Amino acid sequence: MTAGLPNLSPQDIAALRAIPLFGQLSDRALSLLAGVALVRPVARGATLFLQDEPADRFFVLLDGWVKLFRLTREGSEAVVHVIGPAESFAEAAMFADGKFPVCAEAVTDARVMTLTAEGFARCLREDDRIAFGMLGSLSLRLRHLVTQIEQLQVQPAPQRVAAFLLRFCPAGDGSASFALPFDKALAARRLGMQPETFSRALAKLRPLGVDTQGLLVSVADLSALRDFVETPSD
Amino acid sequence: MTAGLPNLSPQDIAALRAIPLFGQLSDRALSLLAGVALVRPVARGATLFLQDEPADRFFVLLDGWVKLFRLTREGSEAVVHVIGPAESFAEAAMFADGKFPVCAEAVTDARVMTLTAEGFARCLREDDRIAFGMLGSLSLRLRHLVTQIEQLQVQPAPQRVAAFLLRFCPAGDGSASFALPFDKALAARRLGMQPETFSRALAKLRPLGVDTQGLLVSVADLSALRDFVETPSD
Repeated sequence: MTAGLPNLSPQDIAALRAIPLFGQLSDRALSLLAGVALVRPVARGATLFLQDEPADRFFVLLDGWVKLFRLTREGSEAVVHVIGPAESFAEAAMFADGKFPVCAEAVTDARVMTLTAEGFARCLREDDRIAFGMLGSLSLRLRHLVTQIEQLQVQPAPQRVAAFLLRFCPAGDGSASFALPFDKALAARRLGMQPETFSRALAKLRPLGVDTQGLLVSVADLSALRDFVETPSD
Repeated sequence: MTAGLPNLSPQDIAALRAIPLFGQLSDRALSLLAGVALVRPVARGATLFLQDEPADRFFVLLDGWVKLFRLTREGSEAVVHVIGPAESFAEAAMFADGKFPVCAEAVTDARVMTLTAEGFARCLREDDRIAFGMLGSLSLRLRHLVTQIEQLQVQPAPQRVAAFLLRFCPAGDGSASFALPFDKALAARRLGMQPETFSRALAKLRPLGVDTQGLLVSVADLSALRDFVETPSD
């Protein structure tokens, strides 16, 4: 095993650490991966891979820009993404053991790090902590993005409460009744609102046929409630 | 190795497949994991783990509801999340080899699947495809969420173009000049806009001291451009 990280500058290491997949890795794990990685210059216009080829490796772009595109039936290019420095690409295709869904071509002179599935699997066998570290950093990042989306998609309280109630209802139309499995204060907390807001939202659902008695809830018309959730209010 | 999935109903299997971590796993991989998992009923009010305990396992809630909370210095509970059926929790803590950041308590009678770090590592060693499958499904889901966030955070075109230009500029104040590494049509595509929209956006940045001649760009005042990106326009 090589000591240190061959061919990688301190900026490269910083770029690797900034990639979600590698965020939680130890120096030792990063060294192991760098040991099986190939770092090479790529000239402007060079093809990195073609659509439908087996995805047996993935890429980290250290310098330069790479375009990902599909070939249309008429033979023209539809650019789906342009990858910039310190971004990884094709990892989802490789891990899912599939084919590259797009073509990749360098649009500037570039420097690319390639990791093959086989080299990667060898590292995983050598050090359990690599899989754990990667799963950990992806899990943390997923959690963060889900929270961000929840904050961006702030629906009004009545809609959020209606969507929550629908989770306890069967599919289909008609009516439903059920008991909330826990108290309203906790239900409110789950939805990120104050208990008073939750109660006011419930009151606003009454004209839609939602009736509550303590923890017992009855919904007169499930499809009306679904429509209400999906319709943005003013 | 057991044949089939002991203690798991067809609904349980469907719930496992719906969890991001397990979405891409083969039946064989799911069987391996189920073979080292513990499925048990948990009574309402039972504690699953305490804040600051070593995170040596993670959980999939098959039925019921579980609250995650912190103890405040005054000894009261601050609920941070309520987990519902078919959700996993504590996996980020386990993979990152840390401590549980919260306490977990069942708020209803529940049925919980537990996977220990040790059992999990054993499965990873037994079948390379498990780590690949999990990394694949998390990568796909990350990509999907990032796209969703980009769509939710639609900034006006001039702000998006300004943010793109700033990626080529040094930190700090003052002025900067550089050449775009690829043509404006591709730059527009990267930002998900038509080339005409990109050109109109560039024109709108001119009063801010952004000048373009072909691919050459000069920015008179970096901090003014940064302010512009961060200020929502009407």
